[in-house]
Amino acid sequence: MTVVEKALPDVVKQAGVAADQVVGLGVDFTSCTVLPVTSAGVPLCTLEQWRARRHAWPKLWKHHAAQPVADRLNEVALTRGESFLERYGGRISSEWYFPKLIELWLEDREIYDECDGFIEATDWIVWWLTGVECRQTATAGFKAMWSPDDGLPSTDYFEAAYPGFDKPGEKLGDTFVPLGTKAGSLRSEVAERVGLSESVAVAVGNVDAWVSVPGIGVDGPGSYVVVIGTSICDMIVHPEETRLPGVTGVVKDGILPGLYGYEAGQAAVGDMLAWFLEHVAQDAGAYAQLEEAAARMAPGETGLVALDWWNGNRTILADADLTGAIFGLGLQTTREQIYRALLESIAFGSRRIMDNFEEHGLVLSEIVACGGIAERSPLIMQLLADTSGRLVHVPDVSEIPARGAALFGAVAAGVFDDIGSAIEATRPKEVRTYTPDLEAKKTYDRVYEIYRTLYELLGRTEVGLLHELKRIRTERREA
Amino acid sequence: MTVVEKALPDVVKQAGVAADQVVGLGVDFTSCTVLPVTSAGVPLCTLEQWRARRHAWPKLWKHHAAQPVADRLNEVALTRGESFLERYGGRISSEWYFPKLIELWLEDREIYDECDGFIEATDWIVWWLTGVECRQTATAGFKAMWSPDDGLPSTDYFEAAYPGFDKPGEKLGDTFVPLGTKAGSLRSEVAERVGLSESVAVAVGNVDAWVSVPGIGVDGPGSYVVVIGTSICDMIVHPEETRLPGVTGVVKDGILPGLYGYEAGQAAVGDMLAWFLEHVAQDAGAYAQLEEAAARMAPGETGLVALDWWNGNRTILADADLTGAIFGLGLQTTREQIYRALLESIAFGSRRIMDNFEEHGLVLSEIVACGGIAERSPLIMQLLADTSGRLVHVPDVSEIPARGAALFGAVAAGVFDDIGSAIEATRPKEVRTYTPDLEAKKTYDRVYEIYRTLYELLGRTEVGLLHELKRIRTERREA
Repeated sequence: MTVVEKALPDVVKQAGVAADQVVGLGVDFTSCTVLPVTSAGVPLCTLEQWRARRHAWPKLWKHHAAQPVADRLNEVALTRGESFLERYGGRISSEWYFPKLIELWLEDREIYDECDGFIEATDWIVWWLTGVECRQTATAGFKAMWSPDDGLPSTDYFEAAYPGFDKPGEKLGDTFVPLGTKAGSLRSEVAERVGLSESVAVAVGNVDAWVSVPGIGVDGPGSYVVVIGTSICDMIVHPEETRLPGVTGVVKDGILPGLYGYEAGQAAVGDMLAWFLEHVAQDAGAYAQLEEAAARMAPGETGLVALDWWNGNRTILADADLTGAIFGLGLQTTREQIYRALLESIAFGSRRIMDNFEEHGLVLSEIVACGGIAERSPLIMQLLADTSGRLVHVPDVSEIPARGAALFGAVAAGVFDDIGSAIEATRPKEVRTYTPDLEAKKTYDRVYEIYRTLYELLGRTEVGLLHELKRIRTERREA
Repeated sequence: MTVVEKALPDVVKQAGVAADQVVGLGVDFTSCTVLPVTSAGVPLCTLEQWRARRHAWPKLWKHHAAQPVADRLNEVALTRGESFLERYGGRISSEWYFPKLIELWLEDREIYDECDGFIEATDWIVWWLTGVECRQTATAGFKAMWSPDDGLPSTDYFEAAYPGFDKPGEKLGDTFVPLGTKAGSLRSEVAERVGLSESVAVAVGNVDAWVSVPGIGVDGPGSYVVVIGTSICDMIVHPEETRLPGVTGVVKDGILPGLYGYEAGQAAVGDMLAWFLEHVAQDAGAYAQLEEAAARMAPGETGLVALDWWNGNRTILADADLTGAIFGLGLQTTREQIYRALLESIAFGSRRIMDNFEEHGLVLSEIVACGGIAERSPLIMQLLADTSGRLVHVPDVSEIPARGAALFGAVAAGVFDDIGSAIEATRPKEVRTYTPDLEAKKTYDRVYEIYRTLYELLGRTEVGLLHELKRIRTERREA
């Protein structure tokens, strides 16, 4: 709320437009970040009566305390052969809506009973802006296992996992509107505080990763959108539904209305490089020197290959208990070579996900990248091109998610008929394109073959090895 | 020769003994370091006529240019089912006598024909000291595939590998005498130069690693002698012959007369730690801090395991093309934890070799360690104890190989009847003993199980992966 009040007037001022030229507003937020609210949309954590109770507060997307609930929900879904699992690559995450809601139900029934809704922060902020409660299809689909065709998983299923949890939809609602729908207009109180007109249309909420797709100018199949920063979110949109293993989710209307949105990702990217600087080099300033030295190396020259599982594997193994590995170390291996191997492992991880899509019939003809690392590391962009054999386009615009959210705001305001026209009209003109070096690709094909075999070996066939190593570590640290 | 002339008088002086109290002399040298000599024992490299030819010079033990010859010899031996291979764990090394001799034969036939002998440096220095050519059983057995029972591999075998190479023994000789035999007495010229009497007995030559066994006080089975420095040489002696896979060699009279000597080893130990300091930490002075931090960690706490193959695997895989690997890396992994994982990998590698011996019926009840790391790293010694469950004894004496060589000199001089009596009389009294922590061992048993599975997987079942990675590296660097 503070950010809205401070940032909105600043942005309008910096843009050099008159306040009355602003006709629409779009919002994006992390997900699944959820909070319990009253029927009037008041967060329980703001009420004196509840603020001392931890479950009254928002649960941040990356909080993993609901892992046991997720494990139970997965186990029961598998036993019952629940078909909804196929939309989520065979497994749901502890970061999602129902694990968090059931954790609340199990641990603080009073808060559970007291709240009228348990709502995504993106929907809540729209509610606060407009006074209208309006939930959208994207988070319902990606995080709450809802689909426009099948609705929620059955009450029988939830009851089988958690007897007594027999009204799964009571805190979620049952109406979800498409992205770009106008939720309402600015409440007078908010309009006044931010210096905009009450007539400003506000689109239903959106989510930072997915909204990058329109923001970057992608409106159809064939483009692999890579948002690369501390981690990677990969997205594609396609007119058809393909259920494929390992994907985070396949959700109708989840990214762009009328299309199936596919999400995948890598759990540690910038985070892994930051780890290397902080813990191995112990020199936060070594980044430029390492990047420069790594850029001078030829494919395959390091003799190294790494499995990029420093924070588990999100896609396609969906296994948070995997850990990273480096192979090929020798007495002449340099710090810079290890750094290069980490960069290559990011690219190989990405290719592995693309292979998974293509092996299930979803052709990806180009990569479109954005995010901090797309802007800062030409080397990683070139590696994405060289390992995959695809063109990599990096549009020369910043704040891609904000752009995407703004496009939905414009649709809500009626400036465009639909998001497709909005994307078409605003697609970034300046693009830096990285072209694959086919000689490099030949060598990388050989290294990737090794990567992929190790991936299968340690991620599937012999998955017990890394799991046991982590289990021992956890036990020893607790002891 | 310079060292002998300078060091001998110095040592006598420092020892505070009169020159005439010195009655015997023993020598140890690296092996297989070999050189071509005339029938009078003159190295060809000292003759004006030949000194410009590289093959006239000594070939240092660790020179690997004869690898293609070793590969060919191994291949033909396997095809023909040559039983001598079993004495060498199934594979001979490019560091050994015949690969080096045949390399010479192939590349410079004139030098090959010109030299009368191609001789181990340890035997040559004894020849120079005494004027008597006298070769011993140890290097003949460990490095020239000779055995007292079977002699050399057959001429048919050598001819099958290298047609025309039909006198395998002509540069080696066919008489090999037991260790401790008196080769002769000091030549008058040498005696004068070093200030000792011509009556000083000189024992036949010995080799630095094996001579550590008597030097450290071991004279029978059950003790696992670990010489730990840049690499590890492991030795045991036993009255019986057991042919077992992966061992470097099993040689009758090879370490102590009358017993079978077994040699095994790890290719990178101190070298691997020096690599970490130089290339990863980039701080040669970080050793003490890393060792101290590593010493504070509990078993299993790092969540890491490493395969200690930074310079290939000597025993039990005998594969120079393997490379190192680290597993279990995460965003919280510290530099110190990686260092500890390397130390643990040294201990696991050692346990793997001991397991191999014990699985073939050779019981090892204790570890006796010497060498730079045994003196400097109590942590590694404790890890050897904790991972193996055995007592580790580190005698508090220095220059163990020189002690061992001196014992053989004393036997040659008749001071002792045999090496057994010499060992008995001089066994080090002060010993630091490391006792296994059985709680730690319980955890290490679990981590070792993971280590051993990864070892099998990457060293055998899927050995093509690391080989291909190295092949790509070699090709790219040559390109």
